[in-house]
Amino acid sequence: MSGGKPAGDLAIALVSGGLDSCVAAAVALERHAEVAFLHVSYGQRTEARERQAFRDIANYYNIERRLEASLAYLAAIGGSSLTDPSQPVPTGEPQPGRIPPTYVPFRNTHLLSIAVSWAEVIGASSIYIGAVEGDSSGYPDCREVYFRAFNQLIEAGTKPETKITVVAPLVRMSKAEIVREGMRLGAPLHLTWSCYQRTDVACGRCESCVLRLRAFREAGVKDPIPYAEQ
Amino acid sequence: MSGGKPAGDLAIALVSGGLDSCVAAAVALERHAEVAFLHVSYGQRTEARERQAFRDIANYYNIERRLEASLAYLAAIGGSSLTDPSQPVPTGEPQPGRIPPTYVPFRNTHLLSIAVSWAEVIGASSIYIGAVEGDSSGYPDCREVYFRAFNQLIEAGTKPETKITVVAPLVRMSKAEIVREGMRLGAPLHLTWSCYQRTDVACGRCESCVLRLRAFREAGVKDPIPYAEQ
Repeated sequence: MSGGKPAGDLAIALVSGGLDSCVAAAVALERHAEVAFLHVSYGQRTEARERQAFRDIANYYNIERRLEASLAYLAAIGGSSLTDPSQPVPTGEPQPGRIPPTYVPFRNTHLLSIAVSWAEVIGASSIYIGAVEGDSSGYPDCREVYFRAFNQLIEAGTKPETKITVVAPLVRMSKAEIVREGMRLGAPLHLTWSCYQRTDVACGRCESCVLRLRAFREAGVKDPIPYAEQ
Repeated sequence: MSGGKPAGDLAIALVSGGLDSCVAAAVALERHAEVAFLHVSYGQRTEARERQAFRDIANYYNIERRLEASLAYLAAIGGSSLTDPSQPVPTGEPQPGRIPPTYVPFRNTHLLSIAVSWAEVIGASSIYIGAVEGDSSGYPDCREVYFRAFNQLIEAGTKPETKITVVAPLVRMSKAEIVREGMRLGAPLHLTWSCYQRTDVACGRCESCVLRLRAFREAGVKDPIPYAEQ
């Protein structure tokens, strides 16, 4: 237990391996005595590389309780260019007001459901997710209104004595603010992976790389991971 | 397309293979031009037998669109006697006001999330689930308040043009009323499987068998499946 944090105060952090979830996990570690790490893969193109980033970040923080879950059925359902190899991944800036083809239908509900089931069993009281509402890709399940609805669902769908809250500490931040918050917390940003397309070095061209590179540029910080081009 | 139902009117029915989900699917088939069947297993003891019941019911109704999904991680999370072989399955009547050890934490949220993701991709507008609030096992995620919260989550977490509603047509019925509704609809109750414990013939002693047998008795109908004892 580290100073000032109550003993037995357990949180779960959803850690995809990307920049945002790494910073959200760092926030959880600052606030709670213990943080368990949850990684969920769902047949996305860069699945193995993201899992590696998750393990690197969990090792960096010496996380004891870890769970890796796989949602194989999301790829079978399809409907997203992230899980369907026949659909191209978009490059460049996301178009404002349009939900991009990388949207995986209702994805965060799957992730959070696993976190809630696990939280109910291990006795965790908070679930951290690195979702960002503005300055992001415009996914409907990354908005504050969605997390409020999810917290009401937990209240209705778990045992009466269960008190679990989803916390999205970055939801109102810009990507540049997230980079600065990560620097302040000493988060291992060099271990994160954001590229939607490649797994050796980041492509620098897909939507996710473009948003990430701009965030570091605006924060005035050099992105520590290597890029094929930028 | 059958008479009176609008073309293109597609629903999804969650079909576990049990009595309630079979009757809920029959209700969906009465109301909608086409019904897609979804089965989700989660490492429960009688997984293979329930999947067989799902296939038998789907074949009986000539269902074309089917999806079988597996939530392997729920057994890894544990916390339920249904998925943890070291915990005994309770026998006899459930105790009122107590959530039984067969409760799988937040299970219906996982099932409904898969249904919503699939519905968004195939364009289904309704999702049928055979949950029963009263006269049942007292699971928190089988209550009307839970389904209302889930419908608000769908509204908040999907594309603006998406209109999907979860329907729990049996939620206020007694188990005996469900048997009678199944008889009225000609549902293939002889193909369903409810036992939590055995897979050859139903044990007649576990909580699920006890509730089922009582329902048929109260409905004045003979249960068409064989039992080891009753």
